Amino acid sequence: MPTATHISLRTRYTQIRQQSEQLCAPLATEDYVVQPSPDVSPPKWHLGHTTWFFENFLLVPYLKDYTVFNPKYPFFFNSYYESQGPRVHRSHRGNMTRPSVEDIYKFRKYVDQHLLELIEQIETSDESWATEARFTLEVGLQHEQQHQELLVTDIKYILGNNPLFPVYDPREPSRAELIRLAKWIEMDAGLYTIGHLGDDFCWDNELNAHQVYLQEYAIQDRLVTNGEYLEFMLAGGYDNHEHWLAEGWDWVKGLESKSPLYWYAVEGKAWHHYTLQGFRPVDLNLPVTHVSYFEADAFARWKGLRLPTEQEWEAACRVAEPQISGNFLEQNHWHPHGVGQRVATQFLGDVWEWTASAYLPYPNYPRFKGALGEYNGKFMINQMVLRGGSVATPQSHMRVSYRNFFQTDKRWQFTGIRLAR
Amino acid sequence: MPTATHISLRTRYTQIRQQSEQLCAPLATEDYVVQPSPDVSPPKWHLGHTTWFFENFLLVPYLKDYTVFNPKYPFFFNSYYESQGPRVHRSHRGNMTRPSVEDIYKFRKYVDQHLLELIEQIETSDESWATEARFTLEVGLQHEQQHQELLVTDIKYILGNNPLFPVYDPREPSRAELIRLAKWIEMDAGLYTIGHLGDDFCWDNELNAHQVYLQEYAIQDRLVTNGEYLEFMLAGGYDNHEHWLAEGWDWVKGLESKSPLYWYAVEGKAWHHYTLQGFRPVDLNLPVTHVSYFEADAFARWKGLRLPTEQEWEAACRVAEPQISGNFLEQNHWHPHGVGQRVATQFLGDVWEWTASAYLPYPNYPRFKGALGEYNGKFMINQMVLRGGSVATPQSHMRVSYRNFFQTDKRWQFTGIRLAR
Amino acid sequence: MPTATHISLRTRYTQIRQQSEQLCAPLATEDYVVQPSPDVSPPKWHLGHTTWFFENFLLVPYLKDYTVFNPKYPFFFNSYYESQGPRVHRSHRGNMTRPSVEDIYKFRKYVDQHLLELIEQIETSDESWATEARFTLEVGLQHEQQHQELLVTDIKYILGNNPLFPVYDPREPSRAELIRLAKWIEMDAGLYTIGHLGDDFCWDNELNAHQVYLQEYAIQDRLVTNGEYLEFMLAGGYDNHEHWLAEGWDWVKGLESKSPLYWYAVEGKAWHHYTLQGFRPVDLNLPVTHVSYFEADAFARWKGLRLPTEQEWEAACRVAEPQISGNFLEQNHWHPHGVGQRVATQFLGDVWEWTASAYLPYPNYPRFKGALGEYNGKFMINQMVLRGGSVATPQSHMRVSYRNFFQTDKRWQFTGIRLAR
Amino acid sequence: MPTATHISLRTRYTQIRQQSEQLCAPLATEDYVVQPSPDVSPPKWHLGHTTWFFENFLLVPYLKDYTVFNPKYPFFFNSYYESQGPRVHRSHRGNMTRPSVEDIYKFRKYVDQHLLELIEQIETSDESWATEARFTLEVGLQHEQQHQELLVTDIKYILGNNPLFPVYDPREPSRAELIRLAKWIEMDAGLYTIGHLGDDFCWDNELNAHQVYLQEYAIQDRLVTNGEYLEFMLAGGYDNHEHWLAEGWDWVKGLESKSPLYWYAVEGKAWHHYTLQGFRPVDLNLPVTHVSYFEADAFARWKGLRLPTEQEWEAACRVAEPQISGNFLEQNHWHPHGVGQRVATQFLGDVWEWTASAYLPYPNYPRFKGALGEYNGKFMINQMVLRGGSVATPQSHMRVSYRNFFQTDKRWQFTGIRLAR
Repeated sequence: MPTATHISLRTRYTQIRQQSEQLCAPLATEDYVVQPSPDVSPPKWHLGHTTWFFENFLLVPYLKDYTVFNPKYPFFFNSYYESQGPRVHRSHRGNMTRPSVEDIYKFRKYVDQHLLELIEQIETSDESWATEARFTLEVGLQHEQQHQELLVTDIKYILGNNPLFPVYDPREPSRAELIRLAKWIEMDAGLYTIGHLGDDFCWDNELNAHQVYLQEYAIQDRLVTNGEYLEFMLAGGYDNHEHWLAEGWDWVKGLESKSPLYWYAVEGKAWHHYTLQGFRPVDLNLPVTHVSYFEADAFARWKGLRLPTEQEWEAACRVAEPQISGNFLEQNHWHPHGVGQRVATQFLGDVWEWTASAYLPYPNYPRFKGALGEYNGKFMINQMVLRGGSVATPQSHMRVSYRNFFQTDKRWQFTGIRLAR
Repeated sequence: MPTATHISLRTRYTQIRQQSEQLCAPLATEDYVVQPSPDVSPPKWHLGHTTWFFENFLLVPYLKDYTVFNPKYPFFFNSYYESQGPRVHRSHRGNMTRPSVEDIYKFRKYVDQHLLELIEQIETSDESWATEARFTLEVGLQHEQQHQELLVTDIKYILGNNPLFPVYDPREPSRAELIRLAKWIEMDAGLYTIGHLGDDFCWDNELNAHQVYLQEYAIQDRLVTNGEYLEFMLAGGYDNHEHWLAEGWDWVKGLESKSPLYWYAVEGKAWHHYTLQGFRPVDLNLPVTHVSYFEADAFARWKGLRLPTEQEWEAACRVAEPQISGNFLEQNHWHPHGVGQRVATQFLGDVWEWTASAYLPYPNYPRFKGALGEYNGKFMINQMVLRGGSVATPQSHMRVSYRNFFQTDKRWQFTGIRLAR
Repeated sequence: MPTATHISLRTRYTQIRQQSEQLCAPLATEDYVVQPSPDVSPPKWHLGHTTWFFENFLLVPYLKDYTVFNPKYPFFFNSYYESQGPRVHRSHRGNMTRPSVEDIYKFRKYVDQHLLELIEQIETSDESWATEARFTLEVGLQHEQQHQELLVTDIKYILGNNPLFPVYDPREPSRAELIRLAKWIEMDAGLYTIGHLGDDFCWDNELNAHQVYLQEYAIQDRLVTNGEYLEFMLAGGYDNHEHWLAEGWDWVKGLESKSPLYWYAVEGKAWHHYTLQGFRPVDLNLPVTHVSYFEADAFARWKGLRLPTEQEWEAACRVAEPQISGNFLEQNHWHPHGVGQRVATQFLGDVWEWTASAYLPYPNYPRFKGALGEYNGKFMINQMVLRGGSVATPQSHMRVSYRNFFQTDKRWQFTGIRLAR
Repeated sequence: MPTATHISLRTRYTQIRQQSEQLCAPLATEDYVVQPSPDVSPPKWHLGHTTWFFENFLLVPYLKDYTVFNPKYPFFFNSYYESQGPRVHRSHRGNMTRPSVEDIYKFRKYVDQHLLELIEQIETSDESWATEARFTLEVGLQHEQQHQELLVTDIKYILGNNPLFPVYDPREPSRAELIRLAKWIEMDAGLYTIGHLGDDFCWDNELNAHQVYLQEYAIQDRLVTNGEYLEFMLAGGYDNHEHWLAEGWDWVKGLESKSPLYWYAVEGKAWHHYTLQGFRPVDLNLPVTHVSYFEADAFARWKGLRLPTEQEWEAACRVAEPQISGNFLEQNHWHPHGVGQRVATQFLGDVWEWTASAYLPYPNYPRFKGALGEYNGKFMINQMVLRGGSVATPQSHMRVSYRNFFQTDKRWQFTGIRLAR
């Protein structure tokens, strides 16, 4: 990660920690507390959990004479680490009014002070503990960046399911230009290398880089738009079982609105949707987002096409868009751009793209050691891989080999569709 | 209601409205928002709902040129009035971070100003609308007092299910004196009059007063204590099906702790429980509270006794404790007293007493007209009657004929036990 | 019970036992096995359970050297007796293909042989065990008669929820004459005696006879008909919340068909319903049946009337129809008659009439001793009382004081409506 | 499929149809009816459904003047074909006592007669309809063979969850010899061809054959045994979260017995399990079976090993056991053999082996046309692939490329474990 070499650890730590707090700046205290779906965590929980991560995995083992801020906090802020003891049941996070937002910010400050102290010790030591700690620190920073993405999507869910549709950012969104037709990127059959290359940080699930044989295939050079998705809706796509997986068809029957999440039919008007800039008409030229795997898969089948596998996606991305750049969190845009607004092919940024690949370990998958081994590996079942990052993903956190993963019915992330054949 | 005649309507309105806000004074903003159980509503919802009641049933129909504070608020603050349009699903109240606490206090202020204006008009008019409005105003005030009780119990639930056990009132609770033995109040067989007498306000469910024939019976002159209930626990009361109704036995199997709500077994120590004054040892001389009907009924059966019917309770109360006085909300005590602390027989105040009577209409039950008809009548099924009021009930809201009602598994109210034979 | 004195115990035992088997005669083996709802038990289970009752409570304690037919059977055939050990979970009865129907008939034969032996011993002994055993035998016979009713209703449910609508009895049903208007039976206010009188057998829940004071009331002299109920349906009764209890309104929303159970809208034709004589047009002159308490209560409210309490029902029945006679099981009619078909007022037979009374103990309720104490008392919560017996109730099992009870949403029994004011 | 070429279609049809009926020969009528779990279908449903398949997809479209046996049967016997109209909800199959077993056998006879007629027409025609029909006939036969496997496993579930543990086949099972140590089959890295080769029948999901690149790997030459699995159990395998996927760990918490399905701890004795030959001690030398994916995966992780992917499995099987032979349905053995009982490496027969591969389409997957397109493709999500066939699989139905698939928590099939590294 070039960033890490150019700026000091201290600066990087501070920037990342501040970024999380800035994301919460527009919130009312009330918005920090609730959990309108088990998938969503209260923003104050995210702020506390990421802080607990640093305290628990760095300050406690490595900073001499460190006193934990509050011995009851681990019970609140441990997420799913069985090895780290009991914790609030995930679906009860939204019942916990305390610690208060104010106390959690105090907790952050306390941990930050001590962490900066520890960073100094790490940087001036060449003992093995310092190498270990430096790695864990990197994990902690990456972890906080992941929760920045969740902060954005969870805040959107909290505000977007409130009938007042509170505006998170009052700036006018930029408008999309007229969309161009999608073109096909043709890829030859052959052996491709998949997985993380280089020495910089990556998650264990991106390792090890390995060869795969791909059949000849083609992949589109832009994302599917709202306009294209609306055609599917108008063609009765949600009412015809032929397009759907059996499990998806059951899922469709339970939907309140046969549309992407956050879309609302407004009588006598075009479809509207909630965005972090407020309740607005759906712009047909922008990429469709907040669709489930079931919807992405059904749309592709209706088109007579399919979703790419994650290997196909990665091989094409390495050719078309090898540099990490795009509509990411740092742009504070909060919504996918249209393809006309950028030169690129939208592989990176904008939306996470559902792939046709199940989330499973790569050959010779090296699970992280110790408690961090619970980070990725134990979730490798019954989820699908998404690629490319979204408007809510920090750019400095992204890699071409990055594997995101969700269950097939999840839609509250900025998820979207790219077609292959 | 003598109060109403001695103090002006204006003063009474203002006092009751302020009382609700004072009950919330110890809360952090976060505490106003959540709903840890479908039975519990967020404190900010109670503040908004009672205000909506005044706006919707008084200002809108009776105050000329009144503009509603916010036309979207009824969707948030209508509780269960089918006739008053759609509303947030009851179990989603805790997902609504907006309107904010601050906005709800503004809503209250706005409605209060207009309501005082309306009161002036009511008091100076002798037209029929004014009689109607005066009645609805009385209902609104009584309604707000009911929600004061719920504010106390819901705040207790929100704080008491947080592992930090936040203290609501830091004052030291008074201690109970040694408990005296219960004595029997013997009652003759014969005709008794049951239901509300007099012209002052009462709920429709207390009407009409009517005669009932009671067999000879006896009823205890004090409440069952924690000490007596603990005997039941130590005797294996929760493990022996013979004491329990079949439905209660199923309910017991699902309990996390075989004890009243808020009780915790602390290793190596006596039982503790959460009170609004904090986490404290259970005082054996105080009345047991936070028990379900199933527990009250099982305890009575274990004792070889039974619960009184509501008629038996009322007939005895009219003899033993005809004046409304006792450990009510106005005392700010937040927990039942021991019987030694008062001269009375604890019929009134302290805890709501489960009776053996189902909540059903009295003969010739006159349901309120119009939308207010939904107030009581539609809940008259599958609930049991409780009598006497609790520490969370405003004294000025209580009557000997007052009928409270809950499902048999509910425990978050200050519920308790009196025995009969 | 005059029957018991006129015919020998031996004969009576044999007749009742044969009656159960005759009710199953029209069944295919397959029909004996399934449980399409947790409320419904497989017919073979009823046959086995009633037999277990005799074996367990009579042969085992009283018949010397008796060997149980199969020591594993109690696990299958104990219904809900906690004191009698573990058992198949109620909702799993329909998963048990064995013991086979044939084996259960062998079990019946085996128990019958031994029971007749025991009856001889009982009749020739004047020791106290014989008195005890004679009482338990009576309970066993009454118990088997209760299960005869359940056999009829459960068989109806099994066949009536099969799209082939198998015919249980191919005989043509008799047709109702034109219905006459209902008249009011006026009853004075005053003290009435309620509960079982006399020395013959009754359930503990009918004891003790006691006085109640009733206000002046009136009760209709016939049951509500399908035609009257259809008016309610056509007037949008199921779509107007004002008629319904809150819990009933929730229940209505989940109904597949807004009509009584077994009713089907047949395109271009009148409403049809499933009867044990097959799928037939609904006869508007016959009493409505298979309605829930919620429906009975809503219908009454729509009419501006109400359901009678069980005391009002009993007091009126003692006047209007003191002799037990009517359209009962012995008539093999399987469906309620019209009022024109009999001289009586339909208090007895035809349908169980929902009353406005909760199922609770009478004053000084004397629960049966020992294991039989589980028979009635533990179900006295969250159920409503029904009175009068139905086409599926053996006439020799009925009393004016008989209290049946079901939860408010149950409809698979032959339940109906009588109005009061 | 060589079989198909050597014996006449007519003979093959007749044999396969008879095989299904022979599997049901040991059943009592009652055993045909129930559905103790939504995964399990009543045996009579299997007999009807496979028959409906022939009627609906062959006789109706291809046999001139064919009259359906009963126009209501499709409602009962359509499984999941949305294109073929409404049907009994899957979980209600066990509530349908009719059509009776006898009627279903008549239905089979009727369809068989007409089908044999149609076969004659097919064999003597060279029109395109005949080619089409011949294909559909092949699908129908393969389909019936799949249901033979389900008949065996569903019968086992029905009998094995009955406390009487009825014996399906009273013959004494053969005993396993002492187990030998597992050896590693070492496989080189490189390109391998995966999928069906040749012109004989296969499912669409085995197509198209394609190249994959495999890393170097090794796979064991026999299945994991009960003895090895018991070591895992005794080492506390079910109590240590480190071995389990997160979803698996949640699943474990809900288990009644921490053991494979059908295992019972018998006080003072070795573990027993239910087999179709009765309730017997677990033989430590036989392959473990009736384990979920979660258990297979956890066991492998505990061993420091892993499950093979389906490609690794297929590549190794093509080397080690290219001929289809083994302990299959035709042997009527009903339980896996020990490895000592056969020369082979147990790739084929005995148990379905869980692989580490999600059930997803192969490149250029050619879904069957028309209604049969619903056969496989719509289930390609959230399931894992199993390979190799079991004691319940007809040998003539098996191929090395055969892909079976189940959700990760399913255990009622004969599932087992082979390790890789």
